[in-house]
Amino acid sequence: MKKQRQGDDAPDRRKFLKRGAALVSGAAATAGLARGASAQNLAGHPWERVYGAGFTGYGQPSRFEQPVQRYPTRPYGDLAPGSGSALSPIEKLEGVITPSSLHNDRSHSGTPDIDPKQHQLLLHGLVARPLKFSMDALLAYPMTSRIHFLECAGNSARNLAPQPLQVPAGALHGNMACSEWTGIPLRVLLDEAGLQPQAKWLLAEGADSAHMSRSVPIEKALEDAMIALYQNGERLRPEQGYPVRLLLPGFEGNMNVKWLRRLKAIEEPMFTKDETSKYTDLRPDGRATQFSFEMGVKSVITKPSSTMTLPRQGLYEISGLAWSGAGRIHRVEVSADGGATWSDAVLYGEERPKAFVRFRLPWEWKGEPAVLQSRATDEQGRVQLSRKAWQAEYSPGNAYHNNSIASWAVGTDGSVKNVYA
Amino acid sequence: MKKQRQGDDAPDRRKFLKRGAALVSGAAATAGLARGASAQNLAGHPWERVYGAGFTGYGQPSRFEQPVQRYPTRPYGDLAPGSGSALSPIEKLEGVITPSSLHNDRSHSGTPDIDPKQHQLLLHGLVARPLKFSMDALLAYPMTSRIHFLECAGNSARNLAPQPLQVPAGALHGNMACSEWTGIPLRVLLDEAGLQPQAKWLLAEGADSAHMSRSVPIEKALEDAMIALYQNGERLRPEQGYPVRLLLPGFEGNMNVKWLRRLKAIEEPMFTKDETSKYTDLRPDGRATQFSFEMGVKSVITKPSSTMTLPRQGLYEISGLAWSGAGRIHRVEVSADGGATWSDAVLYGEERPKAFVRFRLPWEWKGEPAVLQSRATDEQGRVQLSRKAWQAEYSPGNAYHNNSIASWAVGTDGSVKNVYA
Repeated sequence: MKKQRQGDDAPDRRKFLKRGAALVSGAAATAGLARGASAQNLAGHPWERVYGAGFTGYGQPSRFEQPVQRYPTRPYGDLAPGSGSALSPIEKLEGVITPSSLHNDRSHSGTPDIDPKQHQLLLHGLVARPLKFSMDALLAYPMTSRIHFLECAGNSARNLAPQPLQVPAGALHGNMACSEWTGIPLRVLLDEAGLQPQAKWLLAEGADSAHMSRSVPIEKALEDAMIALYQNGERLRPEQGYPVRLLLPGFEGNMNVKWLRRLKAIEEPMFTKDETSKYTDLRPDGRATQFSFEMGVKSVITKPSSTMTLPRQGLYEISGLAWSGAGRIHRVEVSADGGATWSDAVLYGEERPKAFVRFRLPWEWKGEPAVLQSRATDEQGRVQLSRKAWQAEYSPGNAYHNNSIASWAVGTDGSVKNVYA
Repeated sequence: MKKQRQGDDAPDRRKFLKRGAALVSGAAATAGLARGASAQNLAGHPWERVYGAGFTGYGQPSRFEQPVQRYPTRPYGDLAPGSGSALSPIEKLEGVITPSSLHNDRSHSGTPDIDPKQHQLLLHGLVARPLKFSMDALLAYPMTSRIHFLECAGNSARNLAPQPLQVPAGALHGNMACSEWTGIPLRVLLDEAGLQPQAKWLLAEGADSAHMSRSVPIEKALEDAMIALYQNGERLRPEQGYPVRLLLPGFEGNMNVKWLRRLKAIEEPMFTKDETSKYTDLRPDGRATQFSFEMGVKSVITKPSSTMTLPRQGLYEISGLAWSGAGRIHRVEVSADGGATWSDAVLYGEERPKAFVRFRLPWEWKGEPAVLQSRATDEQGRVQLSRKAWQAEYSPGNAYHNNSIASWAVGTDGSVKNVYA
């Protein structure tokens, strides 16, 4: 297992080949990708002969990329059009930063249209000095920046359907994203308010019409919680909690309360609707775990993935995302034979805790049937479970915290299908 | 000077205070920021009582953030509306990732509307096997991801005007940005084409109607150059070279040729129009340096900055960006007295070479006149020059590579002005 820090260094071709030895035979791994390449005169395309478009204040993707969109799932249909999720098209993205426009969006009562001049954040309860902050006051505090993932507790629940859905990877596993967040360490505000010793929990409440509410252990609030104001450089997007949200790195997405309007220091958890009627995990004996805050160690192959087709035999890069709510990703292994043999992938971003890591490994496809899987291990030594082992931990009705290994089957015709393996 | 790696860890308040000792007196540095804060009943704003907006496929900023736009400079006016720059509003952004929609845009003949199905990249000249790549072929290659800044060689040229312009920081120093780029290491494609030993340079040519062209030393092409296809997770934006650009980390922005259509391996530099009639630096004796590829070590305070007003006495966070074309940022010092005394700022992102680093330092303003400056040092030991020392290196007519220290004067009325100090 690799030990040296790679950081942002490029994994070069030699590293690819060395690490990918079990998945690639032969040395000239990239040969053949430029199939059909030859020296010809350059075509004089129309856009090379006309003056281009002028400047814009706020840019947008190319019109040829318009199909790259989030996948909406609206379990209540037109009855509640903003209740549900819009999933990130992870199979069309690269690197580890999710563009804010394609960040997953899990909302309980739609996205409120909040005027930042009117919105305020109240910090009260078991504190010496209750405080109410305007957004201008918050923006004047010292800031910190960190890259962290957010994952909905119900991500990959669609992969628990009786039969495997043949939809893109994002429509199964894209209820998650990773951004550079900037905001105020919550402990700074708690210090200023004078947290009382008997305060063991915080009630966090949103300003959406559902008043999304969760109880947060005070240890987490003091450890690495952030009052987030910026996302990927600019102010938060409306769907991610504009003008202010709670960020609890590694914890269930819904606990990172969006449109945050209130934090109340309390002695016991509040047992809100959002932590009792849902977001509780059913165990095999039918009882629910009271709280399951931290997201498990997990990975998913994004390329190639479900609904794609391999156009030819030859070299492919297997690429995907890995993350853990417990800290850094230590290792990602990839299998092309349904878990019989594994090879270590090259990692990018592994120095960052509670953040997406990109893993990559070359794979030579010779036309044989294959089942592609990835398996992540985090710095706590936790290893992603097989589907079968994960299912044994929960009741069949449980829809949360599905961090089991996902499988893509490649057919002899190059088709890639979602399978339960 | 701090030695331990901070990475993405939060600089906490104690660190802020310790590091900022020279700029802040007293201990309760954040006290007073929540001025006017008090416990009251929460107002029931309209958005808390109505069902919110439904899901979108591709999100946009809040309508309250619409004024956050790039600053267009069009030196040729309507004669050539796409020739010039659109500068990034760095004073409104946080962290180190520039959102792609607000990335600076320096274009010579506007943004071409390129169909990726028709665009091709030719690799030819002194190679054993000339190759022509479709975009689909490029997208099948092994990828690498890295965070890097791009800065126009003419960034901060507007701060060489006879009198200091009273415009926002972005309109002076925002011809730069920082993104997570994903693409193919150029050396992989050069390997495949079979670069011949006599090849010492590459001609890189764009598919815009100006056919922007630069000569690139082969050492750089083999070191860390990338054929970039993705920017901050999604495909390149049109203004940043969709569907494919050259990325030469740390080199002048214009050399990172956008809309890349051709790389030709050659023996000598081509002396194109874009590396002779412009992008050459005038020395005091009136002669031009032949090439000046690497961007210098530099920093700029973004908050507070020109055209802002300090609303009250008390604590402020001085925050800004630092970067170097030579590698990592090692240190950023901040002065509030025009360079008489300096304090070390806390750094974020310093582990990444040739990337933006965010620096932060608390500053207590007691109503006195002040001149705020920042001074960066990179891992090569290069220190950002004062305005005067920088000017002595060049002819008064030189408009490139202005990496001198910038100064913001704070008046007793709290006004912040651009000054030459």
